[in-house]
Amino acid sequence: MEFQISTSILASALNTVSKAISSTAPIPALSGVKFDIYDDRIELTGSDSDISILKTLYTKDEENKLEIIETGSIVLDARYINEIVKRMDSNIVKFELVDGTFIKISGNSAEFKINGIRANDYLTIDFDITTEKNKMSVSTFEKIVRQTTFACSDKETKPALMGVNFKASGNVLTCNATNSFRLATKKIILDKALNFDITIPARTLLSVSSILSDNLEFEMAIDMTKVSFIFDDTIVRGRLIDDIYPDVSRLIPPAYSYTLEINRRELLDAVDRTSFIKSEGKNVVKMTIDSDHIDISSSSQEIGSSHETIDVISFKGDTLTISCSGKYLYDALRTIDSDIVILSFSGELKPIVINGKDDESLIQLISPIRS
Amino acid sequence: MEFQISTSILASALNTVSKAISSTAPIPALSGVKFDIYDDRIELTGSDSDISILKTLYTKDEENKLEIIETGSIVLDARYINEIVKRMDSNIVKFELVDGTFIKISGNSAEFKINGIRANDYLTIDFDITTEKNKMSVSTFEKIVRQTTFACSDKETKPALMGVNFKASGNVLTCNATNSFRLATKKIILDKALNFDITIPARTLLSVSSILSDNLEFEMAIDMTKVSFIFDDTIVRGRLIDDIYPDVSRLIPPAYSYTLEINRRELLDAVDRTSFIKSEGKNVVKMTIDSDHIDISSSSQEIGSSHETIDVISFKGDTLTISCSGKYLYDALRTIDSDIVILSFSGELKPIVINGKDDESLIQLISPIRS
Repeated sequence: MEFQISTSILASALNTVSKAISSTAPIPALSGVKFDIYDDRIELTGSDSDISILKTLYTKDEENKLEIIETGSIVLDARYINEIVKRMDSNIVKFELVDGTFIKISGNSAEFKINGIRANDYLTIDFDITTEKNKMSVSTFEKIVRQTTFACSDKETKPALMGVNFKASGNVLTCNATNSFRLATKKIILDKALNFDITIPARTLLSVSSILSDNLEFEMAIDMTKVSFIFDDTIVRGRLIDDIYPDVSRLIPPAYSYTLEINRRELLDAVDRTSFIKSEGKNVVKMTIDSDHIDISSSSQEIGSSHETIDVISFKGDTLTISCSGKYLYDALRTIDSDIVILSFSGELKPIVINGKDDESLIQLISPIRS
Repeated sequence: MEFQISTSILASALNTVSKAISSTAPIPALSGVKFDIYDDRIELTGSDSDISILKTLYTKDEENKLEIIETGSIVLDARYINEIVKRMDSNIVKFELVDGTFIKISGNSAEFKINGIRANDYLTIDFDITTEKNKMSVSTFEKIVRQTTFACSDKETKPALMGVNFKASGNVLTCNATNSFRLATKKIILDKALNFDITIPARTLLSVSSILSDNLEFEMAIDMTKVSFIFDDTIVRGRLIDDIYPDVSRLIPPAYSYTLEINRRELLDAVDRTSFIKSEGKNVVKMTIDSDHIDISSSSQEIGSSHETIDVISFKGDTLTISCSGKYLYDALRTIDSDIVILSFSGELKPIVINGKDDESLIQLISPIRS
């Protein structure tokens, strides 16, 4: 095994595949990056067995400055190889198998001999895509991730809720995330009719989002148990959650008794100001709404209380008092892109439904708290 | 108690005094900021009983927009008061004692009632300066802090070594910091003859350095047990360490058998590149020096080895092999401001002494490790 490559290109590729590598790897080889050297390319793989990332660098791409002298495979600890390449003293870095699993990595005058792990000890990961690939815009994907993943559960007791459910039916893709106390529902119009119903772990979505960088679009392929994201000679492959996702559509009331229209920023800032007033670690916001104002208050025996009145743009319904988690309200309001938000209510013990004015594509729902 | 003040000025003052407040306060009142309202000023105090900071804001300073309606004192939890003032919805914030220890804090429409602590429950801190004040330039002080504090011990078993010893004798101020395995010695020429020998905790020096901001100079006053730093209507007062500081001057050899002159950046980068090669958590750098080159290497059974050769500018003495902590060498080289450094040696088991070329004001000394 022997090759040389552009230091900066390799550093960036290592950074990409390292996103899948966990510091608490289930088997020692998974704390490393697998290098597979072929005649015309090198493949780098990082994996934590749930998420796997493959990055291919070709000799034909001139900027890679990739020269293969001898093919072969090795696994190098991600921490060490990242440190070495990041600080290398030359624009080209050379790799050479010197003895057993020892790899010599050299630049200008700097030279390292690093103890690698045999590639045979690495997990067998199948990156072949056999199913249909569908294009998606990166900006749409990143919006879905930003507007839904925060609402997922972090509790392993309900595995399905740790992911975002993607359900395509005809030309509509519906993305749902919930932890049983709040729900984010995002609808996207697809270019063509598709039909699937999968749940992707929030962690996988956040990993993909963090490495899409400046791509404009990517391809997505789904098989029975896995989803693949394909872009830029990179494949990110993640396990799907195989628990059945609950039917959350019935949580959204068909009609409302109260509708509030209000400036999003003013409400967000008021809720944010109360956030430190916590009882038993939780900030509860109480809203009293009439036709002119919304009164936002919060109190805690230990700390004290807050109180603030904001003018509303409009309010339909009788005076209403309703309480909810200040954090959930803040998180939900942050995902809305419109300057004006609509809060809809069916009663003080019924869910609060939030969407941007003139934008039905994103709905945030929050369970109330008995005040 | 009732007053109003510029929100941004108060936020900045709270930020300053909060530097002394510990999240693990020894008595509940110390988790708060003490507000003392007088006819012509307000005083804010933060303290963890070791370090205390007093900031005074006067009505006469127009930018404070300070208006005193009623005098009084109260302690308000630093976490809550910082949160409130940082997010306040107006340029002026009003404070009013409403009931017992409840303070109403209000802006435009936002209003808080916070449960305070009686000022009587706060520590009695004497900020009076009765001894001579001496001027010091902020840039000189920050240089001392940057070049010495890192070398202090973090072990409470040797209290004296947790501080920097400041010893003024005639026109020379010598600042020493050591953890027994390395030593930083900085010498400053004073404008006038002074005579003192005090040890200031590294933590106090770092706190002061973090709030000096854009001042050009400050005053320093020393009494038997305390040091005060005075600037910008602010007093930082810290306890001195009363253990006797060891005589470290004898650690620096009077003459050397080997002298190396080398580019600082090249050596620093080479040492940095080896830093991940650790045995039992420690990175040891081995240097072999002859008249033309320095050979820097490091190895670990588990990880592998590194090897690098750099041209030297000059080397006086026979070929020498010496090992030391890579971290200590890196830390020491980082504090040197010259482009060229001089490393002086007396033998492979004698201390390594480092200074900038043509700069004897700062000496870094490192104990070698038997290789």
